[in-house]
Amino acid sequence: MNYTILQNINSPEDLRKLTEAELPVLARELRDFIIDIVSVKEGHLGASLGVIELTIALHYVFNTPDDLLVWDVGHQAYGHKILTGRKDNFDTNRQWGGISGFPKRSESPYDTFGVGHSSTAISAALGMAIASNLTGDFEKHHIAVVGDASIASGMAFEGLNHAGVTDANLLVILNDNAIGIDPSVGALKNYLTSVKEGKNPRENNMIKSLNFDYSGPIDGHDITAVIKELERLKNTKGPKFLHIITTKGKGLEQAEKDQVKYHAPGKFDKLTGEIIPKSEENLPPKFQDVFGLTILELAEKNEKIVGITPAMPSGSSLKFMMDVFPKRAFDVGIAEQHAVTLAAGMATQGMIVYCNIYSTFLQRAYDQVIHDVALQNLPVIFCLDRAGLVGEDGATHHGAFDLAYLRCIPNMIVYAPMNEIGLRNMLYTAQLGLEHPIAIRYPRGRGVIVDWKKPFEKIEIGKAKLLKEGDRIAILSTGSIGNNVIPALVNIDDPKDFSHYDFPFVKPLDEAMLHTIFNTHNVIITLEDGAAKGGFGSAIAEFAAQNNYTKKIEILGIPDEFIEHGTVGELQRYSKIDAKNLQIIFENCRNY
Amino acid sequence: MNYTILQNINSPEDLRKLTEAELPVLARELRDFIIDIVSVKEGHLGASLGVIELTIALHYVFNTPDDLLVWDVGHQAYGHKILTGRKDNFDTNRQWGGISGFPKRSESPYDTFGVGHSSTAISAALGMAIASNLTGDFEKHHIAVVGDASIASGMAFEGLNHAGVTDANLLVILNDNAIGIDPSVGALKNYLTSVKEGKNPRENNMIKSLNFDYSGPIDGHDITAVIKELERLKNTKGPKFLHIITTKGKGLEQAEKDQVKYHAPGKFDKLTGEIIPKSEENLPPKFQDVFGLTILELAEKNEKIVGITPAMPSGSSLKFMMDVFPKRAFDVGIAEQHAVTLAAGMATQGMIVYCNIYSTFLQRAYDQVIHDVALQNLPVIFCLDRAGLVGEDGATHHGAFDLAYLRCIPNMIVYAPMNEIGLRNMLYTAQLGLEHPIAIRYPRGRGVIVDWKKPFEKIEIGKAKLLKEGDRIAILSTGSIGNNVIPALVNIDDPKDFSHYDFPFVKPLDEAMLHTIFNTHNVIITLEDGAAKGGFGSAIAEFAAQNNYTKKIEILGIPDEFIEHGTVGELQRYSKIDAKNLQIIFENCRNY
Repeated sequence: MNYTILQNINSPEDLRKLTEAELPVLARELRDFIIDIVSVKEGHLGASLGVIELTIALHYVFNTPDDLLVWDVGHQAYGHKILTGRKDNFDTNRQWGGISGFPKRSESPYDTFGVGHSSTAISAALGMAIASNLTGDFEKHHIAVVGDASIASGMAFEGLNHAGVTDANLLVILNDNAIGIDPSVGALKNYLTSVKEGKNPRENNMIKSLNFDYSGPIDGHDITAVIKELERLKNTKGPKFLHIITTKGKGLEQAEKDQVKYHAPGKFDKLTGEIIPKSEENLPPKFQDVFGLTILELAEKNEKIVGITPAMPSGSSLKFMMDVFPKRAFDVGIAEQHAVTLAAGMATQGMIVYCNIYSTFLQRAYDQVIHDVALQNLPVIFCLDRAGLVGEDGATHHGAFDLAYLRCIPNMIVYAPMNEIGLRNMLYTAQLGLEHPIAIRYPRGRGVIVDWKKPFEKIEIGKAKLLKEGDRIAILSTGSIGNNVIPALVNIDDPKDFSHYDFPFVKPLDEAMLHTIFNTHNVIITLEDGAAKGGFGSAIAEFAAQNNYTKKIEILGIPDEFIEHGTVGELQRYSKIDAKNLQIIFENCRNY
Repeated sequence: MNYTILQNINSPEDLRKLTEAELPVLARELRDFIIDIVSVKEGHLGASLGVIELTIALHYVFNTPDDLLVWDVGHQAYGHKILTGRKDNFDTNRQWGGISGFPKRSESPYDTFGVGHSSTAISAALGMAIASNLTGDFEKHHIAVVGDASIASGMAFEGLNHAGVTDANLLVILNDNAIGIDPSVGALKNYLTSVKEGKNPRENNMIKSLNFDYSGPIDGHDITAVIKELERLKNTKGPKFLHIITTKGKGLEQAEKDQVKYHAPGKFDKLTGEIIPKSEENLPPKFQDVFGLTILELAEKNEKIVGITPAMPSGSSLKFMMDVFPKRAFDVGIAEQHAVTLAAGMATQGMIVYCNIYSTFLQRAYDQVIHDVALQNLPVIFCLDRAGLVGEDGATHHGAFDLAYLRCIPNMIVYAPMNEIGLRNMLYTAQLGLEHPIAIRYPRGRGVIVDWKKPFEKIEIGKAKLLKEGDRIAILSTGSIGNNVIPALVNIDDPKDFSHYDFPFVKPLDEAMLHTIFNTHNVIITLEDGAAKGGFGSAIAEFAAQNNYTKKIEILGIPDEFIEHGTVGELQRYSKIDAKNLQIIFENCRNY
């Protein structure tokens, strides 16, 4: 590839020296550069391709980093990263030790706010804008770029509602491409479409109602038009709102056509755009597909079953059910709070509700889990996808805290299957009638059992299982991380010292089994793919305290820090919960 | 009082036998009945007085409890409770063993959804409505009554956004009185005001944009008009929105005039409306006032200080600062998520941000605490008001989980002062420059130190304190519940066995002190006014595990169940963390 212009751009300052006529060429080069690298190194693709012109225009018009630019979610910020000094290490994107796939304050002064979860940008930029006013800087610009899927989230509305009554120098740019990871949904999306299509007055009444100076919609790929409008808005004080229309995946034909697949397509041919298929023969299934296919299978037999996802039909594989039972499977958009209370409302009427939310995103609906579900003891079935270390998405996306934040809630059952069959059977068991809400947490990616589609078996709530009997040291694992114990013990010198128990239930604990364990072992080791503070190990330590056991307890899990991005293997190694580190730790426990 | 009509109303069925002409009389009697009892027994007043006509009209027109009525927040539902079979025990409202101050499913089939926190009603009612459609019941009505302060919360927007694209038989009634507990704020409120005043077209464009059949605004105290409109809406399918205008406190002159004070006025003269003053001489201050007065004092000297409250300026006492520094103290409305990320945005620009949120409501912004504050290690100062058992507001409002859900977050400092001086000095210390976010949690109500306004002293982060030295048994308390230990030890037979340590820092723990304690005592007792699962005691058990201490640990705190309403004393007794129970438990610990 030939990057005539891009090769000389090492900062927005360089960019601002270009003539406007050179910018479309730069846009083409920037797209090529992203395609070139992402096709090999993987990562998010479509979102960044869609905002190339906007990215260039923003850095061209505004005086970044003094003017403060916040990207909502941030997976669209690859162009931004490349233009702001990270061109040369962009090929380390999302890798262990490399740059983050999302804007990150510690990485660059141009990354004014760390993002990853959606809909935070308006609040953050408003906070910055108010701070500027308070410190007497009335010239600084504060810009939040928000997608149409993100702006429909309640938090974004809260930000707009506040901003509209301030004199903050805030520019909200709605990047409207009618899609998040999956196509956008909801009444606001329909309204925005009608505005775009000119069916509503070409001014956006809803945004004007919130006291914003509204302009648009304009074509977000017409760089001249975008620059002209940004220049105008630069001279307008107070809260402003610019509505631009873009195409996700712009510039790569397949990515424009199949926007869901090309959100993060994996490796692909950079010239033809074809995704390079991975050999999937004889691989165990993804936990996601076990969820998606099993809930469909159950829904076919039980018409009380409904499914809910906040904006992740593809990622969670609820898609399978949505295709067959569109009236019983709901994508509610990026609205975790609503998703949970909607589930609670349905449950009061006897529906059997599977509410699938990524572990990290359930943090958005924590109060609803406590106040609307658990307090009323409604038997909602939470399926917490991507629990534990998630890999390349990194610090913002690990599902590290769920065991700690759910375990303290009365009435909750907390279950982490060791494998696909455990997940499948619990999905089955849950619809037979539970007396409590349950959270079923499982990791991102593939399990360990190829032949997973076995006849259903009912799981007894609260039961742990002895997997390997030993003499002195008991290893208690919860969830799929337990599969790391097996090779660790195989390689150990004298494995007969060690017992291994699977504790899929973090709550309620199998107290009978625990009494046996504490009475027959000298050392107890706990292992979880979750924050070691407050999680499963903590529950075992509490049990010991309550029951006057005074044995050595070793708690293994994610350490008390935010873990960065890398492969899951690398992150487990860093956290010392991979098989090799476990083996060493197990050996050391012999000394007690 | 003479309740000619009300005395014969034991259910909505009785109500429906009345003529429309009798309803205004019933309204008057219902108001008198509420005033009669609340004036003596205390409770929420203004909100219920404001919806008397609406309450009567809803039960008159709709076939409750088959038609499903959800009250948002629920402190306006006293009339509803009285009309639905709870007239005779309404005088037990909010008392231990009595009826709840909020709708509660286990209390009555008319209470279709438990509430307490705001903005859940639309999601819950939509869930019910979708369930009705799925089960083939297309005639059932589903009604959510939402105040104008609540509807501005993000979660309500999420519910509307979803409802607008369904064919759910949902009626959202906006009870617009321009006030929550404090006056409503935000751009939406201004917009609603302009609709009311006819400055905008008398149809609400914003709501219509979300695809609702909008009607109103109408006078919510004109019972004939309300009934007529409800009858019309009863025959309209799909999502509907009725905007009614009411006056909070309607029918009691003082309550209409001073709506903030009469939200929950305490005891008052039912004839004159005058609030009966309590003798406050020589009482220790409320923790709230210590917060409010201290932050004002600090703000006077440090212009980087700002304060944020989501809709609780009076309750939190941020009001003091708002009155003096209106540009530096922000009421952002019921928008906890926004409040936290706004604080994070401000903190990136070097502001010193005190974000005051009730402990139970921070559950609404859990993700923002993790993702926007802690992950970026921004030194936001969270002031968690009403932590621990809160008393009469009951199960929905206890701040029971904060220690557990905050302790697992990396970078967080978690601090619980034993008394007002601890709170005051930490507020001081926090603005001297912290390297991490901090959560300062303190209880509702009065502390223990009358003479609290002492010169500031800097607190060393992570330090615990020996309060009383003993021989064998160490009591480690965190927060103001530690004050229960003192009388428990005074009354104990042989107090020299017992040490008492104050551990205001739940994170980081004072590990040096803990080593000393574990090396010099046989039994460790932990005490907290928070969920025993995952909290302070759990942290101590983890410490012991990590450091190979094998001593008896007794963990005392709120048991693993939702605690109902009652006085704080009654609830502490139930939880066995009152002085008397502590004494018994301490005695028993001698046996180890």
